Amino acid sequence: MTATPFDRREYEDRIDRTKTRMREAGLDALFVTDPANMNYLTGYDGWSFYVHQGVIVSLEHDQPVWVGREMDANGAKATVWIDHEHIRSYSDDHVHSPVGKHPMDYVATVLEELGLENAALGVEMDAAYYTARTHERLQRELPEATLVDADLLVNEVRIVKSDREIEYIEEAVRLSEAAMEAGIDAIGDGVPESEVAAEIYQTLVGGTDELPFGGDYPAIVPLMPSGEHTGTPHLTWTDEPFSAGDPVIIELSGCRHRYHSPLARTAVVGEIPDEMAHVADVVVEGLNAALETAEPGVTCEAVELAWRETIAEHGIEKESRIGYSMGCGYPPDWGEHTASLRPGDETVLEENMTFHLIPGIWLDEFGVEISESFRVTSTGAERFSSFPQKLFSV
Amino acid sequence: MTATPFDRREYEDRIDRTKTRMREAGLDALFVTDPANMNYLTGYDGWSFYVHQGVIVSLEHDQPVWVGREMDANGAKATVWIDHEHIRSYSDDHVHSPVGKHPMDYVATVLEELGLENAALGVEMDAAYYTARTHERLQRELPEATLVDADLLVNEVRIVKSDREIEYIEEAVRLSEAAMEAGIDAIGDGVPESEVAAEIYQTLVGGTDELPFGGDYPAIVPLMPSGEHTGTPHLTWTDEPFSAGDPVIIELSGCRHRYHSPLARTAVVGEIPDEMAHVADVVVEGLNAALETAEPGVTCEAVELAWRETIAEHGIEKESRIGYSMGCGYPPDWGEHTASLRPGDETVLEENMTFHLIPGIWLDEFGVEISESFRVTSTGAERFSSFPQKLFSV
Repeated sequence: MTATPFDRREYEDRIDRTKTRMREAGLDALFVTDPANMNYLTGYDGWSFYVHQGVIVSLEHDQPVWVGREMDANGAKATVWIDHEHIRSYSDDHVHSPVGKHPMDYVATVLEELGLENAALGVEMDAAYYTARTHERLQRELPEATLVDADLLVNEVRIVKSDREIEYIEEAVRLSEAAMEAGIDAIGDGVPESEVAAEIYQTLVGGTDELPFGGDYPAIVPLMPSGEHTGTPHLTWTDEPFSAGDPVIIELSGCRHRYHSPLARTAVVGEIPDEMAHVADVVVEGLNAALETAEPGVTCEAVELAWRETIAEHGIEKESRIGYSMGCGYPPDWGEHTASLRPGDETVLEENMTFHLIPGIWLDEFGVEISESFRVTSTGAERFSSFPQKLFSV
Repeated sequence: MTATPFDRREYEDRIDRTKTRMREAGLDALFVTDPANMNYLTGYDGWSFYVHQGVIVSLEHDQPVWVGREMDANGAKATVWIDHEHIRSYSDDHVHSPVGKHPMDYVATVLEELGLENAALGVEMDAAYYTARTHERLQRELPEATLVDADLLVNEVRIVKSDREIEYIEEAVRLSEAAMEAGIDAIGDGVPESEVAAEIYQTLVGGTDELPFGGDYPAIVPLMPSGEHTGTPHLTWTDEPFSAGDPVIIELSGCRHRYHSPLARTAVVGEIPDEMAHVADVVVEGLNAALETAEPGVTCEAVELAWRETIAEHGIEKESRIGYSMGCGYPPDWGEHTASLRPGDETVLEENMTFHLIPGIWLDEFGVEISESFRVTSTGAERFSSFPQKLFSV
């Protein structure tokens, strides 16, 4: 038996809920290519998303079908809950073959064998890895099928977490906290950024003596903009040494069985300037105002509004997304791409939705980010981490 | 001035060579979305490829135009060689907005401003982040433009490396070797896989006392199939401890300024079984036969044939891809998706092409992978690493 992170009943329930949405959308079948969605439905876990692969869910079949590269079929056998007869694979001459076969040629034959050549087939139009050519080839090979945009259909199923999913997020946050502490401890005048990144990785993956587990690779690498680059949130580390006076933002996440719990904090090499301390106070106040607003029945935009109104009292205006639904993920993202905490998002919060709330204020000379991952409870919201909400002087 | 890893002349030369291929393909402009291609042409380096972004190269304009998310425009300013007036960005309400704006709506307006609304516009149809919806939206917003499949056009420009690129690959291999040593040293009976992965990461990113640099995040995480899973090449680590007798394959790469030099080796926890030692000898013999065959003028398929004929002498038959062109890369892949060392690939080797040669033999009980990254020289081929070509007993 394959040991999956969830029991079979939970996967079957996920399939059932996916099929309900498929019926609502008028779909006969769904071709799932987002690696997080593939994992969610089947348990499949491998770094093979640089070649085309997918999972087929059909209303007529109890179990989904995994389709991938021949070389990865054994990896599927080792990680999925579905019976191995539902694992199908294409030969290696389909891989990165500019003028030859495309993996979708094979996927089309599998769909035909499943009797889906005339199906209303949902596809994830804007998922990373569902390329324009994938779509074109699939339509060409299945001229009678109707390809329907079903982007985010499974992501929507994922938005409310089970107790077991929450447990993995709670394990992930232990790694996030330990790695944040290791990172902050490692920063210092003259220390290369890469050395700090190495300490963070050591803890994110290896864990600590107190933890009975290590971590998976996170869907996003530790981000560490510093100095004049704290206004550039997605730069990674360099070999440059930190200098006295540098502000440093660290955003990272531990990962357990592909579940994340992201965390961002800001540090200063040396003394914290008064202006920065003030901005950090405003960020923390706005962050907690947003957290206090979150509860079942409240909309995502109301959570953002609480942040915005709070910082406005301090004369700061900023209208943008301050958070997003998160959980299971693979590179390039741990965000789920469904609900966002921003103006116009009327998604209503439900118990066990999980978000990364990451507001920030960027001035000309520095930026401050202090974030929390949180769960919507039956009566409010609860942050996963208890890491101090403050600026760190190192 | 922005400090880029290459001087401006080298970037301009890359643009010139790209334009030459564009003219040959009848293109007026090219919309580049592969992050490695974006980096190659502009220097842009950030973990922002989970949102849509791209670089526009037009025959009518000297410099390319970077287009991305507003939040990432500062990251562009910090990393690109192009003048900042060529950095264009879209507002945050375009990001993961299921029913609202799409980033391509904005990209279309930039293309219009550049006078390209009627252009023959090359797009990278099978690049990881060029989604089906991206293509559909771009065509919808630019009804008079002709979108042409220009997948791999820039990848083909990248295939022959400059001296400076080779230097970065040579730096990357120092990290690969040190991390491989750290990984092999850490493996042992009862040691969790995650602990070994942590040691590998510590070295890949932090470097060693002997090295004057650390490393970037590699485009693929360290892969470490072990025990019964050595036949599943793309599984990553777990928390399970290694056991006496386990074979372990480690495949990893250091990364410098996004350039890689992958390396794979196989170890055994405890004594090496005779059968496995024999298979390793065959792999090394075949590997070196392939390396000795590689030289300018020889085809990719001839290199594979040398491997296949050598192992056939030992009664082993295996027809598949044993390597691929590599260099600059972002997740999910360090491979360039152009030349492959496999039957049917008639790409002719030229000096300073770089490959990862990764043949393997998988039997029922275990698999053996021993790989080399190599450069085609003026007269032959030269491996980057000098790591021992053998099985390791740990």
